[in-house]
Amino acid sequence: MSDSTAFQDSLHKENPIRGCYGCGADNPMGLRLKSFVEVDESIARWRPQEHHCSYPGVLNGGIASMLLDCHSACSAVAFDYREKGLDPGLAADELPSGWTRAMNIEFLRPTPTDTELTLKARVIKRGRKSRTVSCSIYANGEECVRAEVIVVMAEN
Amino acid sequence: MSDSTAFQDSLHKENPIRGCYGCGADNPMGLRLKSFVEVDESIARWRPQEHHCSYPGVLNGGIASMLLDCHSACSAVAFDYREKGLDPGLAADELPSGWTRAMNIEFLRPTPTDTELTLKARVIKRGRKSRTVSCSIYANGEECVRAEVIVVMAEN
Repeated sequence: MSDSTAFQDSLHKENPIRGCYGCGADNPMGLRLKSFVEVDESIARWRPQEHHCSYPGVLNGGIASMLLDCHSACSAVAFDYREKGLDPGLAADELPSGWTRAMNIEFLRPTPTDTELTLKARVIKRGRKSRTVSCSIYANGEECVRAEVIVVMAEN
Repeated sequence: MSDSTAFQDSLHKENPIRGCYGCGADNPMGLRLKSFVEVDESIARWRPQEHHCSYPGVLNGGIASMLLDCHSACSAVAFDYREKGLDPGLAADELPSGWTRAMNIEFLRPTPTDTELTLKARVIKRGRKSRTVSCSIYANGEECVRAEVIVVMAEN
């Protein structure tokens, strides 16, 4: 079971986070990552372009970090909205938001740029005002980058 | 005392890392960060564009991570070359290289996009094959993002 609309596309047309470089639906210069919430996991698929490299053919670590940051924060917020029965399409000032306080990233092996990448995120710890998200990037079935991301939930 | 040429610009014209999205001198789509090695610190200055945001006016966390990753790795390698008396302009296969194994990033406060950012990096721990780099991003004199980055030195 998964929502058929990406979390980022379900946000109100005037929600300012739609301009985010990593995942904003309305940032034409950005990566436009799309996160799909499933039962207890959130999935994103993204295909790098050749210029998103560090060494030729290897994904830039900053691009990897951006994918992990955006997917983790969006997933934490999306799960929160679902639990509270909140429609992501409400005006931004009617919804809590989230922001990344910290990321701990391990680069396990080179991530190739010539294939589609899959990100999987799940909440592994819930604080009163924060969520800790475990998120990894997979390529060709192998885990390439692993992160723990602390997302602060800002109540409205 | 600082080198007048950025580390990235001092690399051999055929060094493949010149194509890096974060700091490659020859990646026209990338951020083209420039690192200048001083006595025991390395400095980079970079001005975001408006579209490098998360929320409007706030630097995207992934862009911040990219700046921290590239500046830390380049600084670790640049210090290593200087200690060993190696010319960065040698062919890539005559030089050791470096790659980021892990990053631990704390977002201390929102980083604005409307001003020049300064990055400062220094090596705080030396392993046999790795360096731990402390690197921060400053805006308007305030530390906004702080990272510890582990860079593995690959001998040739």
